[in-house]
Amino acid sequence: MSTVTACTSADVRFPTSQSLDGSDAMNPDPDYSAAYLTVHTDAEDGLSGHGFVFTIGRGNDIQRVAIDVAASHIVGRDVEELLRDMGATSRLLLHDSQLRWLGPEKGVMHMAIGAVINALWDLKAKRAGLPLWQLLSRMSPEELVDLVDFRYLSDALTREEALDILRRAEPGREEREQRLLAEGYPAYTTTPGWLGYSDEKLARLCREAREDGFTQIKLKVGADLEDDIRRFRIAREVMGPDFPIAMDSNQRWDVADAIEWVNALAQFDPHWIEEPTSPDDVLGHAAIARGVAPIPVATGEHVHNRVMFKQLMQADALRYVQIDATRVGGVNEIIAIVLLAAKFGLPVCPHAGGVGLCEAVQHFSMFDFVAVSGTKEGRVIEFVDHLHEHFVTPTKIEGGSYVTPTAPGAGTEMHEESIRQYTFENPAAAEVA
Amino acid sequence: MSTVTACTSADVRFPTSQSLDGSDAMNPDPDYSAAYLTVHTDAEDGLSGHGFVFTIGRGNDIQRVAIDVAASHIVGRDVEELLRDMGATSRLLLHDSQLRWLGPEKGVMHMAIGAVINALWDLKAKRAGLPLWQLLSRMSPEELVDLVDFRYLSDALTREEALDILRRAEPGREEREQRLLAEGYPAYTTTPGWLGYSDEKLARLCREAREDGFTQIKLKVGADLEDDIRRFRIAREVMGPDFPIAMDSNQRWDVADAIEWVNALAQFDPHWIEEPTSPDDVLGHAAIARGVAPIPVATGEHVHNRVMFKQLMQADALRYVQIDATRVGGVNEIIAIVLLAAKFGLPVCPHAGGVGLCEAVQHFSMFDFVAVSGTKEGRVIEFVDHLHEHFVTPTKIEGGSYVTPTAPGAGTEMHEESIRQYTFENPAAAEVA
Repeated sequence: MSTVTACTSADVRFPTSQSLDGSDAMNPDPDYSAAYLTVHTDAEDGLSGHGFVFTIGRGNDIQRVAIDVAASHIVGRDVEELLRDMGATSRLLLHDSQLRWLGPEKGVMHMAIGAVINALWDLKAKRAGLPLWQLLSRMSPEELVDLVDFRYLSDALTREEALDILRRAEPGREEREQRLLAEGYPAYTTTPGWLGYSDEKLARLCREAREDGFTQIKLKVGADLEDDIRRFRIAREVMGPDFPIAMDSNQRWDVADAIEWVNALAQFDPHWIEEPTSPDDVLGHAAIARGVAPIPVATGEHVHNRVMFKQLMQADALRYVQIDATRVGGVNEIIAIVLLAAKFGLPVCPHAGGVGLCEAVQHFSMFDFVAVSGTKEGRVIEFVDHLHEHFVTPTKIEGGSYVTPTAPGAGTEMHEESIRQYTFENPAAAEVA
Repeated sequence: MSTVTACTSADVRFPTSQSLDGSDAMNPDPDYSAAYLTVHTDAEDGLSGHGFVFTIGRGNDIQRVAIDVAASHIVGRDVEELLRDMGATSRLLLHDSQLRWLGPEKGVMHMAIGAVINALWDLKAKRAGLPLWQLLSRMSPEELVDLVDFRYLSDALTREEALDILRRAEPGREEREQRLLAEGYPAYTTTPGWLGYSDEKLARLCREAREDGFTQIKLKVGADLEDDIRRFRIAREVMGPDFPIAMDSNQRWDVADAIEWVNALAQFDPHWIEEPTSPDDVLGHAAIARGVAPIPVATGEHVHNRVMFKQLMQADALRYVQIDATRVGGVNEIIAIVLLAAKFGLPVCPHAGGVGLCEAVQHFSMFDFVAVSGTKEGRVIEFVDHLHEHFVTPTKIEGGSYVTPTAPGAGTEMHEESIRQYTFENPAAAEVA
């Protein structure tokens, strides 16, 4: 038996706003950051669990305090008991009625709980000696549905339906594991498409993306229509008529604006329009989806829980399900969303970039391939070539695909030196207190 | 000219879980709390602004840190400039792109920004020598719409439509002010209906509610159906066939359960069913509304922003709009929601109770009466007789109505002695850090 002896956290911020990388129509100056958690135990294996919430700078300290509060639930507890039944552990945290009031199941508190749950999954995978995707892919359908909180889902997905989905995918798991290890998982890159790049840089980065083997790129749009038309024309000319080019407006528009703007760009055959409006606006996304058809709508990086994903699917409001590794309540809720996507027949194409999101989300797409949807068809994982060097098991890309990770864990562990070097001291804290 | 010299905050918690008052199907042991903010200036008037977020205990420290971060935006700024254009001030806080990532516009961060905005409104009203309801009710339609962020609303409510609504209500403002000062505003009480009371206590409190002049009561339901049937029968027998008795399940059900449970209680003619399911589930509420008709659905205390309220209205999913004083992004967003309600012809019946919510929400119903809907018909403000003594201008109830406040401010100022006495020291903080 071993015990959680301590949970330590850190406010890690990279000063990315000093370059223009990562800028978009709504987030002009992000400082990519992580509110970071380490779960320590007294086990002889010496293993620790690592999780984090990705933020873009200010407020990372708030996120860290929230993680501290959520993590206090597991300090002093029996590690084996926590890890044995991760469904129960997830409920222990999410059903704390007092903390729940701060959401419920959304925003800072929900993401904090997700970080704690993810750190425990990292520990569980390390103890099993498996990468997270493989650990999940080898669990039985019954074990997997036990991880899911079906509350508020039963009008769209019941436990029995989820079991059916997982059982249908059981034959062939082993063969798909082998394929995945051999082939990796297709990636797309946002690198060419950030706002603020010159036309020359855009054209060069487009060419490089194709040379690097990526089979899809994405452009940020929404700040200025004339600009977008010019940039999309350049990208289309460089990439040719058949290369998938998605676009992303980062919540910039109201419903009518979205429909008008997207239709003005329809001439360039966009692969999808991502985050056309508020992530909360299910009905707005549905209206936009109807108004811009056949251009598909994608969203998810800011969709705060499974209840919102459920509705976006029920309302036929999205075509690509862009799960994020740290927005929702951890691995368990991500499994719920992956199962919902399978129920509705929608491809999961995770959001990544930021700090450590590539390292984390790849596990969910790979789990989806092996144990849920059984296919990579029409599916890609976002890739941005930022900040990977700070992670112990950094993402590897070869020929435009994620190289399937084989190191034990969830991919979420940062180098101690990186944490030390980029720990943020808030100069404003003294003024206010 | 004066300057915001400091923003001080406090983690105030009342140990209410030691009694059963305030318990419901989802919140068995709340410790009513406030993450509390005071805005200090160097003006000669010596006035300060007060705002808070209501929480139910654990996590109040997180909420306080979030308030500190949001408040750091206004420290050192020109007070007159901040207060002159509260629309711009609200945008200054809400459009901080880095903090926005933590929501967007939801949960801990959004409520924190709301507390800062509300503290400034308290200060503005005090400087004007008016209670907040009266300050708002005397602003021109143009000034009022300038307070509202119409982003993501324009498919349901445009600036022009909002102006029309306010202009239509301009005639008669003065007469309604006088009526309000003479009559107050009708209240309903939840006091009899908490779970955990004996049948005798329930019956006695029902009788007392009627004797006190309340014209509506509310029962908590959703923990046990047989219990609910017995309790509702008692309440109905005591109150007679025509007395409005609402019920509240505090998000306890999935869609199908809600429809079944509510219909099993339909025999007692409930006035509304409140929070039948997840506050995020717009489509679920719409399905429930259809499934339990003609019993009306009410919700709002956990609805996190104007975009969610908009959709609940567009989907015909709610009949009573239960705004909360500290859940959304402050007075400005509440005005947006009140205008949406007017557009859809729905009565605003605020959620109250907790800590200071009665003191705060009354201003919004009264503003609605004088300057927006122009009527009190079918409208009530919740009242719970808890913790009022800690406020400088406590709510007064006479004959079942809120006595219209005349003291300058937003009602949000606590006694310094109460803050001192109930400031919480977190014993867990040391363990985790």
